[in-house]
Amino acid sequence: MAGTNSTAKKPEAPALHAPAIILVKPQLGENIGMCARAMLNCAVTDLRLVLPRDGWPNPSAVAAASGATDLLDNARVFDTTEQAVADLTYVLATTARGRGMVKDILDPHAAAKEIHKHNAASAEQKCGILFGCERSGLDNDDIALANAILSIPLNPGFTSLNLAQAVLLVCFSWLSSENPFKPAAAPESATPSDELQNDAPAPQAEIETLLKHLQSQLEENNFFRSAEQKPTLLRNIRNYFFRSNPTRQDVRTLHGIFKALSGNRDWK
Amino acid sequence: MAGTNSTAKKPEAPALHAPAIILVKPQLGENIGMCARAMLNCAVTDLRLVLPRDGWPNPSAVAAASGATDLLDNARVFDTTEQAVADLTYVLATTARGRGMVKDILDPHAAAKEIHKHNAASAEQKCGILFGCERSGLDNDDIALANAILSIPLNPGFTSLNLAQAVLLVCFSWLSSENPFKPAAAPESATPSDELQNDAPAPQAEIETLLKHLQSQLEENNFFRSAEQKPTLLRNIRNYFFRSNPTRQDVRTLHGIFKALSGNRDWK
Repeated sequence: MAGTNSTAKKPEAPALHAPAIILVKPQLGENIGMCARAMLNCAVTDLRLVLPRDGWPNPSAVAAASGATDLLDNARVFDTTEQAVADLTYVLATTARGRGMVKDILDPHAAAKEIHKHNAASAEQKCGILFGCERSGLDNDDIALANAILSIPLNPGFTSLNLAQAVLLVCFSWLSSENPFKPAAAPESATPSDELQNDAPAPQAEIETLLKHLQSQLEENNFFRSAEQKPTLLRNIRNYFFRSNPTRQDVRTLHGIFKALSGNRDWK
Repeated sequence: MAGTNSTAKKPEAPALHAPAIILVKPQLGENIGMCARAMLNCAVTDLRLVLPRDGWPNPSAVAAASGATDLLDNARVFDTTEQAVADLTYVLATTARGRGMVKDILDPHAAAKEIHKHNAASAEQKCGILFGCERSGLDNDDIALANAILSIPLNPGFTSLNLAQAVLLVCFSWLSSENPFKPAAAPESATPSDELQNDAPAPQAEIETLLKHLQSQLEENNFFRSAEQKPTLLRNIRNYFFRSNPTRQDVRTLHGIFKALSGNRDWK
């Protein structure tokens, strides 16, 4: 899909330290499936369900997961939130408001940093993030189990966000906070071809040659109306072409353009 | 919903400088509606549609927008991507891969910073982000119009992300990125000086006019040797000039150069 990066290398470390996602009393199987998809997008794989309303497994979840079925197969189901977080050392509760509890309130970026910090302290630490049901969110007893509150700051005039979107934003903030994946580089080829060469930035000398040609042609065509204007005009032209970071191919194309415009006269 | 923050203060500046979201040939109305919802979550309100497959307005979009209907009502529809970006000064194309084009590839965080930077430079600047259709993303001619590529780094083993999720991640990255630049001050004088105007990035429409002139002149001079080569050559040329981020003065200078090289014939 547009906007995804399918060429980067496979992640190794992050999955080990990814937080568990705990959905407390989720209602729709479809939402559980979309959460699984969002989690896997971000290399987050530990899904835990507390009392899913429609039972488990749930075919609607599989249908909505767009292939993230291993993650659903490995999901663990618990009767209470306490059991679901029993092995975790740091737990965040996602809520819309602080609910008057005296806990730190973190945004997704700060939460990600906190999770990395806990993981760095010991390989045995494991963090988790609680999400409440679609209708009413987490109840106060669930929130009481958490070390801190996670709140997603949105346009206060329009905060309606579905469960899977909330999970996506939180997981993506975690993934990208110390992102081990670089944006896709140009495709690598085993035998660097001419094409690759052409894509390389032009050496300054090639741009210089182009500009010298251009200058002499412009002089011939009375482009520089007055001697006073000439230095400024030339500087602007040079400035633009150097700033434009042409590739070697771009420089060749510009030679071709200038030559063609000049009626193919005297352009080397 | 769980995970949203309805107590934060109303944002003031961001909505003014939010990037336009341009959906190119979107297929499902439902996805357009979900994009609108994701945008409004992040105080991004300028939605533009290029040739929506099922026409416009579309009741499926309204049904999926969860109340973000004003945003849909104000969406503008265009026949071409060029028209949709004509007033923009900085355009990002969201793609999965670099597509072998020589452009910077930014992740959502870096893209947000770049947008803030452009907005800080002048209140009159306007940025936009292109998203392709659900099935195949943007085509190369659309990407050629962009100043840089936006790529969302995800788990390379599972990059399937729907359109609205991609829009959500990009808009949320913009909303939550700290604006390191002061908001652009309004132009001080009622009659902005020529110099100020000249240093401003050229709107896409001015670059487009330049390239149309150039193309017709090149056609007249038999620059395009064969019909097969022409589309690729043209795309490379367009790619280079859009990527070069010319100022309004640069565009005027390029007009002057092309005109002079052409022996001052027929160049307006």
